[in-house]
Parts: sequence; C-alpha cells; structure tokens
Amino acid sequence: MSIGFPPGFKKRVPDGDNRERLVCGDCGFVNYVNPKIVVGAVVTFEGRFLLCRRAIEPRHGFWTIPAGFLEEHESTTDGAAREALEEACAEITIEGLLGVYNIPRISQVQLIYKAHLKEPKFGAGEESLEAALFGWDEIPWKELAFPSVVWALEHFREVEGETVFAPRSNPLGQLGNYDPAARLR
Amino acid sequence: MSIGFPPGFKKRVPDGDNRERLVCGDCGFVNYVNPKIVVGAVVTFEGRFLLCRRAIEPRHGFWTIPAGFLEEHESTTDGAAREALEEACAEITIEGLLGVYNIPRISQVQLIYKAHLKEPKFGAGEESLEAALFGWDEIPWKELAFPSVVWALEHFREVEGETVFAPRSNPLGQLGNYDPAARLR
Repeated sequence: MSIGFPPGFKKRVPDGDNRERLVCGDCGFVNYVNPKIVVGAVVTFEGRFLLCRRAIEPRHGFWTIPAGFLEEHESTTDGAAREALEEACAEITIEGLLGVYNIPRISQVQLIYKAHLKEPKFGAGEESLEAALFGWDEIPWKELAFPSVVWALEHFREVEGETVFAPRSNPLGQLGNYDPAARLR
Repeated sequence: MSIGFPPGFKKRVPDGDNRERLVCGDCGFVNYVNPKIVVGAVVTFEGRFLLCRRAIEPRHGFWTIPAGFLEEHESTTDGAAREALEEACAEITIEGLLGVYNIPRISQVQLIYKAHLKEPKFGAGEESLEAALFGWDEIPWKELAFPSVVWALEHFREVEGETVFAPRSNPLGQLGNYDPAARLR
C-alpha cells in the first residue's frame, strides 16, 4: 500500500527522541512509524491445508495462508482467527505459535499460528478468489504468494506430532523478499 | 506518549478499507495506526536477573527488564539486543522466545526473549537510573514497572532447564494494565 505524505512534513529528530521522524512543519504532528504486525495461521483439516487465492494486490491470483494486519486493540490470536474468518470464511482453533518471521525490508513482523478448522466449512472471503484444502503433495508450491507462506507450511511439517515446540523463524539468511514482477504462468 | 492530531483530521472509512481511520480533510493523507511491537529480554547471568530502574515515564523509578519499541527495518531479535545495549549497556545472547504478551488497551504486542549476558558487564543507559543483577529472592517485586515484567520473570522460571519450550502468553484473564497512579513507597 502506498501512502502519500502532506507536503509540509519534514524529516527531523523530535525533542526527546534519537531518530529522524516525519514531522509536520505547521503543527508539529509527529508521524511515528513502527513495524507492522501480520497475524495468520497454517490451518489444517484431517491432514489437509487451507489456502486462499488472493483477490487483491500484491500477488493477485497467488495462494496464501489466511493472514493480515493486526488491528488496534486486538490480540494476536484474535487477529489470526479474524483473518481466517474474513479471508476463508473459516472458524479455527489455535494450537500454538508456529513461527515469528521478520521481513525487515518492509518492517513487517509475522506471527503465524498452528491451527485447525473447527468444522469442514470454508469459502472465499472478500479478499479471496477461492479457498481450498490441499494435501501436502497437492499444494501449488510455485503459485504461493510469499516466501513466508512456504516457510510456515514447511515449519508445520517439522513440528507435526510434537506437543511442545519452539516457534520457528526465518530460514538462515532469508529475508522474506519476493520478486514483485513474478507472474502466474 | 501522547500525540496530537492536526485539527483537519477526521475519522472516516477510506476507499477500499473497512474501518474508520483518521484522514486529513485537506490532502487525503490517511493516518493508518497499527499495534506497536515491544521487544525485550529476560537476561540472566549465573542465575541472576538483569533489571533496570526507569529514568523515564511511565513508571519512573520502577524496575523493568530491558525492552522497548521495535524500530523500522529491524528484526525482533536485533531489537531486543539493541534495547539491552541501550538501557543496560549489556551485550546479550538470545536463547529463544519466552513470551508473546498482548496489551490490547494500548494496542501493544510484546515479544520477550530468554537471553543471557555475554559477559558480566552492564550499566545504566540513558533511559535508566541504574542497572543491577538480582537473585530470584532479591527481585524488587513490588517495584516492578509493568505486569508483563512479572509474567516474563515467572515464565522464565517455568521454562528454566527446558531446551524446547513454547512461548508463554498473558496469564488467563489478565490484560496487562497497571495502575498509573501507583507510586513507589
């Protein structure tokens, strides 16, 4: 999403701070910008994985796990459950924290949970073209929207069957970037 | 921290969105506000706990673990290490994610790591009056700054000696609020 700044905003270090922020030259408003939290879940039902095909940019037409920006005054688990409902019309039960992924280039922290469908009901929400359950070997690996979707699915397999596990993080050296010019075949 | 908004900002739902945001009536600038991420660590050295006494509000004079807001383009582990350096002049090694705490009232998500001092060197950073190592029974429990500091210390004890553990979250029913009127005895 691109956000335009009013012309009067200039970069400077506000009083009592130690970093440059965008400050309005007229009224002194400080536009504090912080990393954003994405919450989501790898959701399964009887060993199959719930994926949604994106109806929005970026990565329109690619498949993803249900995930999105955490909203104000919302807990991370509530946010992950809300995203499953909004994007896949799915009610989920959260089992544990599967991964904490950092995408520093875009200042994003993703908290991805391990979850399962409460019942085998789902569908395409407003931001999805379709939603479907895939067996592991049926997952459209080349049509997944983001590197972190691949990581989360692989990490799910790593912890499968374990009752206690530590959340995973980015695979060594990987920053979560993707090629924005990549198109579906 | 309190932030003033320029008078021209009004609440409305921007195009393509589904929630009210503050939008500038003059230029259309949308002030997207998202929950903020706090990163920090329970840091030990030979079984003792590193705490800092706050030199800033809120909770000036109370003790805390090193923690603060994650900055743009920073990973969560880098942020936790930076805060230990800034607040306690301490170099730390991060061992794992200890807790994910939600404070919905102030839209804050805290990622608190388990860590240890690389060497027994520390001191008061700019935002601290002092820094010190405490044995478990010496911790100034009644002078801890925030509920989540208590949770993190207690969760550290829960997972002590375990090599694999799941990160903890808020104790049941607790929202992380504190009494802002509380003063040191």
